[in-house]
Amino acid sequence: MKQAWMLGAAIAFAAPLFTVVPLAAADNAPRYTEEGRLQAPINYREWIYLTSGFNMSYAEAQPGAAAGSPSRFDNVFASPEAYRSFQQTGTWPDKTVLVLEVRAAGSNASINKQGHFQTGERFALEVHVKDVERFPGDWAFFGFTGDEPAKMIAMTAQCYSCHLQHGAVDTTFVQFYPTLLPIAEAKQTFRSRR
Amino acid sequence: MKQAWMLGAAIAFAAPLFTVVPLAAADNAPRYTEEGRLQAPINYREWIYLTSGFNMSYAEAQPGAAAGSPSRFDNVFASPEAYRSFQQTGTWPDKTVLVLEVRAAGSNASINKQGHFQTGERFALEVHVKDVERFPGDWAFFGFTGDEPAKMIAMTAQCYSCHLQHGAVDTTFVQFYPTLLPIAEAKQTFRSRR
Repeated sequence: MKQAWMLGAAIAFAAPLFTVVPLAAADNAPRYTEEGRLQAPINYREWIYLTSGFNMSYAEAQPGAAAGSPSRFDNVFASPEAYRSFQQTGTWPDKTVLVLEVRAAGSNASINKQGHFQTGERFALEVHVKDVERFPGDWAFFGFTGDEPAKMIAMTAQCYSCHLQHGAVDTTFVQFYPTLLPIAEAKQTFRSRR
Repeated sequence: MKQAWMLGAAIAFAAPLFTVVPLAAADNAPRYTEEGRLQAPINYREWIYLTSGFNMSYAEAQPGAAAGSPSRFDNVFASPEAYRSFQQTGTWPDKTVLVLEVRAAGSNASINKQGHFQTGERFALEVHVKDVERFPGDWAFFGFTGDEPAKMIAMTAQCYSCHLQHGAVDTTFVQFYPTLLPIAEAKQTFRSRR
């Protein structure tokens, strides 16, 4: 009888666990190969969406340059753990993983007549990882072409100096993340000069 | 003693609930007021992101029309439960909630020199709900201006006929959702004529 009750209790308490199993219950901390390559964050599309850009560039348009590069969207995702911590503190915790997905922009398909939509073609996947023990400067960038583990981008690359100089919060571009910006302002983690 | 054990069991089984509490643990089924207004899905930014559009329109550009309307992004989110079911079946379950967030596009701020980014200004929030018992045609649209409950948009509105005619899957525009489109094709739930 007691065991039956225990089983009943187990089911009663366990049942909600199954119905609320989160989409991102797994540990989304960065994982590396033995050679130090970052494993691709394969489930990033189920992470927390931060923003999208359309044809964004930090460089001035070149007057003589051909306007030939295809239109694209940049979608930014944060691991759920990092996002939750940011909400509480206004900055990123150790083991934060941010993903920038670059996706082709289509137009004039189906009933769409103006503007652009996102297509199935992914141009690139760039990942920004905070791992204090591992990286000088706390953060590192990785660029993926597929799902294969990626080598760290060398620290001489422009992305590091640009993020360091212009990132509004902890070398990240929170100035372009509309739902995080007010949190950083409220928590006073937002650099005004950027 | 028995009560102490019960309490212990409660804590033992409840504790994991707190440590794995997902970002979207809540039941994200639609909720209505007594008058039939839909409660705003306030945590939709923690749902599953499907896609964004930039200045999309299903109407032809009018040659004489002033190009004065501000640039905007449309971000689409699905409730986690609906998304998970779609992955398994290629279509939407009952109680699906889809959110279209219309957000202002900014340019030339911080270090951005070309293209557009999303700003803190939300122009509109439109919600598409599947509730078979409640709505003729299974689905209904709601438009929110703030977090107040919203009245159902009348079924004579163009959104209903357009989605019915052109929606690739169950009156929804899966043709513009890059990660769901291949699932619908694989599950053969995708209408080819749209």
